[in-house]
Amino acid sequence: MPELDLSLSSIELTRLICDVPSVSGDETTLADMIADAVSALPHLDVYRDGDTIVARTDRGRAQRVVIAGHIDTVPINRNLPTRFADIDGVPSLWGRGTVDMKAGVAVQLHLAAELTDPRADITWMWYDHEEVDADLNGLTRLSRTRPDLFAGDFAILGEPSNGRIEGGCNGNLRAIVRTHGVRAHSARAWIGENAVHAAAPVLSRLAEYRPRTIEVEGLEYREGLNAVRISGGIAGNVIPDLCEIEVNYRFAPSRSVDEAEEHVRDVFAGFEVDVVDRADGARPGLDAPLAKEFLQAVGGVPRPKYGWTDVARFSALGVPAVNYGPGDPSLAHHDEEAVPLAQIEDVERGLRTWLTR
Amino acid sequence: MPELDLSLSSIELTRLICDVPSVSGDETTLADMIADAVSALPHLDVYRDGDTIVARTDRGRAQRVVIAGHIDTVPINRNLPTRFADIDGVPSLWGRGTVDMKAGVAVQLHLAAELTDPRADITWMWYDHEEVDADLNGLTRLSRTRPDLFAGDFAILGEPSNGRIEGGCNGNLRAIVRTHGVRAHSARAWIGENAVHAAAPVLSRLAEYRPRTIEVEGLEYREGLNAVRISGGIAGNVIPDLCEIEVNYRFAPSRSVDEAEEHVRDVFAGFEVDVVDRADGARPGLDAPLAKEFLQAVGGVPRPKYGWTDVARFSALGVPAVNYGPGDPSLAHHDEEAVPLAQIEDVERGLRTWLTR
Repeated sequence: MPELDLSLSSIELTRLICDVPSVSGDETTLADMIADAVSALPHLDVYRDGDTIVARTDRGRAQRVVIAGHIDTVPINRNLPTRFADIDGVPSLWGRGTVDMKAGVAVQLHLAAELTDPRADITWMWYDHEEVDADLNGLTRLSRTRPDLFAGDFAILGEPSNGRIEGGCNGNLRAIVRTHGVRAHSARAWIGENAVHAAAPVLSRLAEYRPRTIEVEGLEYREGLNAVRISGGIAGNVIPDLCEIEVNYRFAPSRSVDEAEEHVRDVFAGFEVDVVDRADGARPGLDAPLAKEFLQAVGGVPRPKYGWTDVARFSALGVPAVNYGPGDPSLAHHDEEAVPLAQIEDVERGLRTWLTR
Repeated sequence: MPELDLSLSSIELTRLICDVPSVSGDETTLADMIADAVSALPHLDVYRDGDTIVARTDRGRAQRVVIAGHIDTVPINRNLPTRFADIDGVPSLWGRGTVDMKAGVAVQLHLAAELTDPRADITWMWYDHEEVDADLNGLTRLSRTRPDLFAGDFAILGEPSNGRIEGGCNGNLRAIVRTHGVRAHSARAWIGENAVHAAAPVLSRLAEYRPRTIEVEGLEYREGLNAVRISGGIAGNVIPDLCEIEVNYRFAPSRSVDEAEEHVRDVFAGFEVDVVDRADGARPGLDAPLAKEFLQAVGGVPRPKYGWTDVARFSALGVPAVNYGPGDPSLAHHDEEAVPLAQIEDVERGLRTWLTR
């Protein structure tokens, strides 16, 4: 297990922690490294729950900010180890996790060590299982066992946002749409009923679906409804009796998750729909006082967040929260994800400016 | 390993060998049992190749018949162990393999022991991997290593045919139809391209396809084109970049496998089509002299065979071949497959009548 030297630059730290694979469910090595590194810092109280690590300053400040980042990634697809590369003339670090979201985590780790005397007390959170079912998410677990750790006046999620502040987030719902049939030998298909053929209208409705773009508190949220997985059939000569299409609906924060579920059931009317994962979105929340100060320190025009992030969790707990991290969110989960090195340094500078006394 | 007592009735033997699971790829236990049992019979020369067993009489008869049956089954789906049951008032044996085709194999095993002095020399063949790719089929392997064993004047496959003679068989082709896309985070689906949505027209063409019924030498062959498997997607939040639909085309023996491939490529014009398995059908071949004698001994009106069977292999080698076995072919691969006990006895009687001097 390589040691994590938090005095390294955020860029070097990004590379180091990206090259320790941590696909959801396999975060322990990286979590151990982080726990060891922050436990060595006398100004932080460290608490660990599974592969989630919380490190807090306790300087008795009037205000407390929570700054969080997930340490897991989507599956690797021949994009590790990382490498430095010029991408369209921009010096970048390429590879799985560079955008979503180890560059953000690296900046946080570096500042956690550096900011021994911040203007507000800080609760740092690095957590597991963000890229999979909400039920598995380290923050879901932590919010049950230690809800007190979520207390704060403002929260920042280091999710990729091109180094700009992104308010709120879309909601997220996943459902399985099922078609049924009757198995039979494929040489006598007329005896059975083909569940895969029965799924033709499900795919047609998805292909024809036109997603909405919705304005919420001045920011425009773009929606999406997609098949993310399909499966059916058991053998090369058997008529399938079951086809399952997993669909993912991303919806503007003006719609509740109940309304979102109703919409999905409407789209697939006539088919069996089984909702397996659902999470409300979050309204932008940029009118909170600390949010305004943060906006001023960082500069620029805030934008909407498309991806669901754990800002929704803080938002639901009454803690205003924004996304702020290096990397282009459109490259998250992309095989060619790569983060511009300058954005890593910009985000480090933005957070430092705001957090330094 | 239970011992196989070939003096048991064909019905008892059917039950015994069905209760030894032998899904394709997992035939060794059953093959061992068969090899042990027939090796103990002094009137048979036994040859084994993998899980295929050949047992031959060598009485110097003027003619030789090949009688064959596969010992593998499609996957079990909570339909083992077998049980005796009255089905619509018909005393039957229910469970995986009873129809396709262990009842046929049981009759063959019983007669292999009994017919020590047959009217024609007999080559018995019990083989593996019939329910999967033609490349894996035990007879494919044997025809390469020991083509001499296929020599004969007539061949009978014990595939289920309701105890009637079924001539020829449909051809069989399997292909993968692929759609491609571009992966992206499902929160920003517009960055990617959804390969599963792109498959909508493939499923629609399958759902709308109307298969032909074709008369060949007086027998009517019914065709079929079906999706047998579909898969796509890698995670619940990633736009799939690949969708694969495996299709199975069963075609009348008047069409060559090359013509069949052309037809499948026409149906899926505009999509990537990768043919993975192809086998010619077989014309009925009921005008061969031994076929006529067999028809007379068994009685009844011959019918077409829908399913592809290894008769096509013998047909291609110039050996006229028919299907003749107990069980309703429409129940092959069906979860509720069950064979009427009377059909097992009928087929035993039919073969005995014809083969006894």
